[in-house]
Amino acid sequence: MKQERVVYVNGEIVPESRAAISISDRGFLLGDAVFDSTRTFGHRIFRLREHLDRLYESLRWMRIDPRMTKDEMADLTMDVLERNLPTVDERDDVWVTQRVTRGLRLASADIQGAADRPTVIIECFPIPFVERARYYRDGLSIITPSVRRTPPEAMSPRAKTHNYINLIQADMEARAQDPRAYAVLLDMNGNLCEGNGSNIFIIKDGVLLTPKERYVLAGISRRTALELAHELGLEAREADLDLFDAYTADEAFVTSTSFCICPVASINGAAVGEAGVPGPVTHRLQSAYSGLVGIDVVQQYLSRLS
Amino acid sequence: MKQERVVYVNGEIVPESRAAISISDRGFLLGDAVFDSTRTFGHRIFRLREHLDRLYESLRWMRIDPRMTKDEMADLTMDVLERNLPTVDERDDVWVTQRVTRGLRLASADIQGAADRPTVIIECFPIPFVERARYYRDGLSIITPSVRRTPPEAMSPRAKTHNYINLIQADMEARAQDPRAYAVLLDMNGNLCEGNGSNIFIIKDGVLLTPKERYVLAGISRRTALELAHELGLEAREADLDLFDAYTADEAFVTSTSFCICPVASINGAAVGEAGVPGPVTHRLQSAYSGLVGIDVVQQYLSRLS
Amino acid sequence: MKQERVVYVNGEIVPESRAAISISDRGFLLGDAVFDSTRTFGHRIFRLREHLDRLYESLRWMRIDPRMTKDEMADLTMDVLERNLPTVDERDDVWVTQRVTRGLRLASADIQGAADRPTVIIECFPIPFVERARYYRDGLSIITPSVRRTPPEAMSPRAKTHNYINLIQADMEARAQDPRAYAVLLDMNGNLCEGNGSNIFIIKDGVLLTPKERYVLAGISRRTALELAHELGLEAREADLDLFDAYTADEAFVTSTSFCICPVASINGAAVGEAGVPGPVTHRLQSAYSGLVGIDVVQQYLSRLS
Amino acid sequence: MKQERVVYVNGEIVPESRAAISISDRGFLLGDAVFDSTRTFGHRIFRLREHLDRLYESLRWMRIDPRMTKDEMADLTMDVLERNLPTVDERDDVWVTQRVTRGLRLASADIQGAADRPTVIIECFPIPFVERARYYRDGLSIITPSVRRTPPEAMSPRAKTHNYINLIQADMEARAQDPRAYAVLLDMNGNLCEGNGSNIFIIKDGVLLTPKERYVLAGISRRTALELAHELGLEAREADLDLFDAYTADEAFVTSTSFCICPVASINGAAVGEAGVPGPVTHRLQSAYSGLVGIDVVQQYLSRLS
Amino acid sequence: MKQERVVYVNGEIVPESRAAISISDRGFLLGDAVFDSTRTFGHRIFRLREHLDRLYESLRWMRIDPRMTKDEMADLTMDVLERNLPTVDERDDVWVTQRVTRGLRLASADIQGAADRPTVIIECFPIPFVERARYYRDGLSIITPSVRRTPPEAMSPRAKTHNYINLIQADMEARAQDPRAYAVLLDMNGNLCEGNGSNIFIIKDGVLLTPKERYVLAGISRRTALELAHELGLEAREADLDLFDAYTADEAFVTSTSFCICPVASINGAAVGEAGVPGPVTHRLQSAYSGLVGIDVVQQYLSRLS
Amino acid sequence: MKQERVVYVNGEIVPESRAAISISDRGFLLGDAVFDSTRTFGHRIFRLREHLDRLYESLRWMRIDPRMTKDEMADLTMDVLERNLPTVDERDDVWVTQRVTRGLRLASADIQGAADRPTVIIECFPIPFVERARYYRDGLSIITPSVRRTPPEAMSPRAKTHNYINLIQADMEARAQDPRAYAVLLDMNGNLCEGNGSNIFIIKDGVLLTPKERYVLAGISRRTALELAHELGLEAREADLDLFDAYTADEAFVTSTSFCICPVASINGAAVGEAGVPGPVTHRLQSAYSGLVGIDVVQQYLSRLS
Repeated sequence: MKQERVVYVNGEIVPESRAAISISDRGFLLGDAVFDSTRTFGHRIFRLREHLDRLYESLRWMRIDPRMTKDEMADLTMDVLERNLPTVDERDDVWVTQRVTRGLRLASADIQGAADRPTVIIECFPIPFVERARYYRDGLSIITPSVRRTPPEAMSPRAKTHNYINLIQADMEARAQDPRAYAVLLDMNGNLCEGNGSNIFIIKDGVLLTPKERYVLAGISRRTALELAHELGLEAREADLDLFDAYTADEAFVTSTSFCICPVASINGAAVGEAGVPGPVTHRLQSAYSGLVGIDVVQQYLSRLS
Repeated sequence: MKQERVVYVNGEIVPESRAAISISDRGFLLGDAVFDSTRTFGHRIFRLREHLDRLYESLRWMRIDPRMTKDEMADLTMDVLERNLPTVDERDDVWVTQRVTRGLRLASADIQGAADRPTVIIECFPIPFVERARYYRDGLSIITPSVRRTPPEAMSPRAKTHNYINLIQADMEARAQDPRAYAVLLDMNGNLCEGNGSNIFIIKDGVLLTPKERYVLAGISRRTALELAHELGLEAREADLDLFDAYTADEAFVTSTSFCICPVASINGAAVGEAGVPGPVTHRLQSAYSGLVGIDVVQQYLSRLS
Repeated sequence: MKQERVVYVNGEIVPESRAAISISDRGFLLGDAVFDSTRTFGHRIFRLREHLDRLYESLRWMRIDPRMTKDEMADLTMDVLERNLPTVDERDDVWVTQRVTRGLRLASADIQGAADRPTVIIECFPIPFVERARYYRDGLSIITPSVRRTPPEAMSPRAKTHNYINLIQADMEARAQDPRAYAVLLDMNGNLCEGNGSNIFIIKDGVLLTPKERYVLAGISRRTALELAHELGLEAREADLDLFDAYTADEAFVTSTSFCICPVASINGAAVGEAGVPGPVTHRLQSAYSGLVGIDVVQQYLSRLS
Repeated sequence: MKQERVVYVNGEIVPESRAAISISDRGFLLGDAVFDSTRTFGHRIFRLREHLDRLYESLRWMRIDPRMTKDEMADLTMDVLERNLPTVDERDDVWVTQRVTRGLRLASADIQGAADRPTVIIECFPIPFVERARYYRDGLSIITPSVRRTPPEAMSPRAKTHNYINLIQADMEARAQDPRAYAVLLDMNGNLCEGNGSNIFIIKDGVLLTPKERYVLAGISRRTALELAHELGLEAREADLDLFDAYTADEAFVTSTSFCICPVASINGAAVGEAGVPGPVTHRLQSAYSGLVGIDVVQQYLSRLS
Repeated sequence: MKQERVVYVNGEIVPESRAAISISDRGFLLGDAVFDSTRTFGHRIFRLREHLDRLYESLRWMRIDPRMTKDEMADLTMDVLERNLPTVDERDDVWVTQRVTRGLRLASADIQGAADRPTVIIECFPIPFVERARYYRDGLSIITPSVRRTPPEAMSPRAKTHNYINLIQADMEARAQDPRAYAVLLDMNGNLCEGNGSNIFIIKDGVLLTPKERYVLAGISRRTALELAHELGLEAREADLDLFDAYTADEAFVTSTSFCICPVASINGAAVGEAGVPGPVTHRLQSAYSGLVGIDVVQQYLSRLS
Repeated sequence: MKQERVVYVNGEIVPESRAAISISDRGFLLGDAVFDSTRTFGHRIFRLREHLDRLYESLRWMRIDPRMTKDEMADLTMDVLERNLPTVDERDDVWVTQRVTRGLRLASADIQGAADRPTVIIECFPIPFVERARYYRDGLSIITPSVRRTPPEAMSPRAKTHNYINLIQADMEARAQDPRAYAVLLDMNGNLCEGNGSNIFIIKDGVLLTPKERYVLAGISRRTALELAHELGLEAREADLDLFDAYTADEAFVTSTSFCICPVASINGAAVGEAGVPGPVTHRLQSAYSGLVGIDVVQQYLSRLS
């Protein structure tokens, strides 16, 4: 019988089906929480330290004190992962995620106040290779919804929080048109910004371009793609990009922790480039990505096509 | 021994201390949930129907189906309230709140997908009369933080959701300066907008002015204040208001479900008006409010001053 | 054999198939031209004078002198219509359109200069009842594209010109997802604005609301709908409207010269209201519209369903 | 007797005076068309390939299929040029322009639809050396009108289309003040942007600065000026520039296909620099430009002063 | 021999030629000062109380305490006026102005600090009837410069301060083109806003329209014009107005303390209306204004034409 | 007895207590004036030429002609400094400031006009070492007020003028909360901008970042800090920075003529970094600054702690 996944919740390891938080937790009531996710490749964790650095930046921006050091958080994370690996099929891999909320609301106190103990959760969750395999084969259909990405002066997109309604509204708008489409939002200036947990790149005349870090959650996979591009001798830089860039691009792809580098087939129904997916530069980057992580990331998806 | 409050969670009544939701609930993971709160006055519920109307508008905007009618939701709410009233001191009153999340994330499916059963929670929570009594005596100190209210094109302020980080950041900015200050955010155009769960009014030359509904969560208490003003023969209307209006106002007050009508003493350190708090028009509105709800709302706070 | 439509081109009546303008005409090279269109109802022209008033406002904004009075333009228009009516099936009706360009570019002169004679064209064009009949039966599917309506400080939406690329881009974005969808753009502030030649109305709690005139081409049909609403005792007014209003509306419809009042079934995939199309208020307005123009405008469409 | 220029219109070569398009062509009705222009220097065409690359990008953004390859378009262009050169005085040169519209509107179909054959036009047009000679002698008087350049999220300025009303309104505003002034618009952020078919450069402390490509149609002449600057060892880069930069610049010039590099004498009435026109850096760039194209571009203008 | 005007400076009456303030006064160093001006009509002061109300609002926004009551300020003002009237020709009238600065900077203290005594100045200054007479005859030429009015979130336009550079830059831009032109700035949204000390009105179909108070210094003359319009039975209201409104207006005029109601002949070179200046509605308002103030304000200007 | 400071006012040297300008000077009436300030280090003037270059740029933007060359201005400045040095304690240093106004308003002329002689003032003013010493010890408390920095399209922040109300409003907002706080404003896009006469730097992962020159008055001290960073081998560049950058910075400091490099302890109440003040990079830059100017700038402040 298949073993159940377990979750770390405030010092205890519990089966996922019983892992719960109080309805008085501000993480639930207000989305007053941050998280970060890395994944495994061939059951080995990827750049945990970089992800924890980013988690602690999100915490700092939110003025939440996790009451543990990065080293402690790393140890707990590795422990949770090890406990869960037996539940993971060898073809599969998992997200590994830390979540920290500000803790419980205070009864008999101003609603703004929080109890002084944060809630810390560490969990593993399966990456849906089967369900997403088609995107690796067919490329993603990107739609830019009319909903704009929340501007930094209202809420920074650079912290990874439990406030996703802006992105959910964008997805609903896109998926009402095409249930398999992915939304990539424009920012308040009309530039390409980011999707739900994903960054977008376009390639034009051999140069990789991706939206500026200020307006997006700069993913570790995004950074990895930029590093790989530089190693391959490709010019790669941040830029203000708009729909003209998108429609005239030679290639485009999306990066995310789970997707690594997933090709884009069309943007708002306009085919990207003339080369099919993946385009040649995207293909080189996918290969380099596979080399870096030690497994064939493309094949991991494609092998699950039904 | 004092009885514990109980909470309705998905069909069950449980003690508040054990009321919990799964860590896989999208209401927790993404703040993918809406709520609405009314309160009791003298243990009698206030305008439940109007609050449920608003709750169902929030649900509709979020495309969440609560799987129950407003009547069913009302019945459940009254049941939860009745079960909790024995825990409420006669001097006290409570918030009565419904919360609906989109439900659990789907394992082995795209992270966007949700299980098809929403999570419904109904709870009562004590209004902190003791802690807030001073605001009724001294007036509120309002600070307009540099964080701007999320614009409607990113996420509508008119739905009441579990995404509060924009408002939390604003409060942290204000309270770092003065722990008892209240933040009232400006919108993206620099107009006065709203605070955390509260609406602002200014009075100038006998006219009540409050920010336009499009940019704020138009509270039931806000609407009540407008209605009372009309009944008192006062001119009252929505307007674009800015700091010039705030600094030159004769009086100002804040409305919220719990506060009803709480006077403002200063805005960014500049005293409002010359009459002390509450000003004469604010005082008339407070009296009318008390008349409407059947208890002296000012005295309910002031009697708890220590 | 069916007779061919004729067109007035700078003083001459020519068959439509031979009606042409010079490739040096600024109306072609730069879209440096304005137009206005009314239609016939039962072969009788509708509010020609109001349309000409608007045409002459567009001309004034563009500083183009048509070299003829409104009366002369009206006479020519009626002449062209009469010549074309024999080509129109009795079930059909036509758009009747005046177009005025700034005239020819000047050779051997600065490219900005124009020859001093404007180009005037008057034409009739069949309204596609067959192709659009389904919209009257099923309601329109509205999509708000990510392209925003050109702001007034760049080019006024209130003049009817030959510069439609902003609207064409919006339509392409919407129709790539659903070939039968209609785009209604948001303005630069994220408010609902207008579609290609059409205005949008929503109905909430019995009140008609439509975007403010400043940001849209205020159609004659839009004005007619507002007048009819007032005659029916309905409250109707201009307002800043956004997607929250759209998603929580009870009913919605679109007005245009050809459409009159066409119900909206969904906005970004979210069904409008619960009443199906047309909703009760929309239905009353359609009936009043039919009464005004003397033919059953709904039936004119529905009778052409195949 | 002077021979007449000829024009390619959809497969035929016709005299310019008879070159016409249908009034049903969407290029006329909606400005639904793109174009690109290069020019000859000493009757030899300049960078045709680069211009065609840009034309095809405009087509792609507009989703118009020209139904011919770039090579075919190039061959047709050269053919049209050769047929027209006999009409061109040896002192003169011409613009060489391709235009592609989406084709005819469809009768009995939705107005959005287009017939499937685009309209292709190729033409030559004389550059008005006589009329513009004074600008080379006196420098241009630049006015920044209050009309702002259409923002990219409404319509990309990077495609060359038949929608020029934004720029025409700007020119009318400037020329109402001074008939010889040139408008350079600000973008929506208040930065210097571009004029009608022209790009602006300023020179400050020996560095060339020009607005960023995202907000302008990046002219081939602009690119040529940047390349020449680099060859001359001058620092040259894109930047956000505003009126402070303009008023404190040492020199300024405008580039366009016809103008090449034309010095600016004043901006909003404030003299640029203290050196008269052209300033020393502008002069070096003009000389380099002449060297590149094989004729003295300054002298070509100045020799036509009357 | 003509007597010299005198000025009240901090408690003393001094001849204007010797009236001075310290170079350490913050009113000079930082423009840290407010003022208000009324004028005389036939040597009688106009609405002094309303102007003082506004002065004290400006003071309140600036958190400057004038150390005197409105009554004291009024008495001093009347005293200064009486002392100066002997210097005023009977055909002439004067501005009467109060100025209050925050006082001297503090040596040996933080530069932000001010000495605690404000500087109060009261002065009379001749209205240049001769120089402006032509505007009453010919109408004003309005230019909308590219400089935008400072937005309220940076500095409220509703307080009358000693910070005029925004308006001076606008005037310089307009007057470089035409030394007799008047600048009327657009606000940050592209709406018509205000000029240097003046408000603009347009008349369309018999309705008076003027920009909203939030974005302008709402002049007493503006208010007077609105009041007179209502008395004459004319519809008059605030509105967002843009260049389309301006170019299609039937009439336009400017109000200011000195100008009262001065007709506008053209806006950006486009003639306003077809009736010449003043238009019929403007003329009625001018007559009503004369009636109100007891002298013929139009004739006062026109009689000084040379 | 202590000697009094003297001031140059339009050709005369007068004691500071008697240095005054006419109340008719536009520098007073309208803030129609520019200035620049350098300081002495150990009684020796710092980068006078660079400051004069900037002064003359401000003059050019304002179209004010100072009627003297930079050399003359430099000579006068040195003369004023020498006359004042005897009044300066050896531990102290002074600001040295030139101010130029457009001159007197013209009586009997349009209020826009100015007499043709500018007013030139040159003065020395003591730097308040005692009052500011604590900031060097404790670090600055920065608050970002809700008031936004005036955008360049309204008034360029890059000229140093006598219009400071935008910055004064920001300071009042910050200091109402904490009298020792310093305001650093956000620009209209929500980026960190500048404070009253000061520039902000943050340090992240060893890289110095400071807001872009376009939106700030780029101080000479800012430039000096950038130069010193490069000399120390530190990466230093301009960037769009927001509150996320601020809250997650390792160190931060402010530069100004008087402050040189003053560490920041907190931003909106959130402690900057974990290292206390000054952080290690800030410390290195302070040392380098001291080396450059020849005195220990830190010690100069700290020695004055009481």
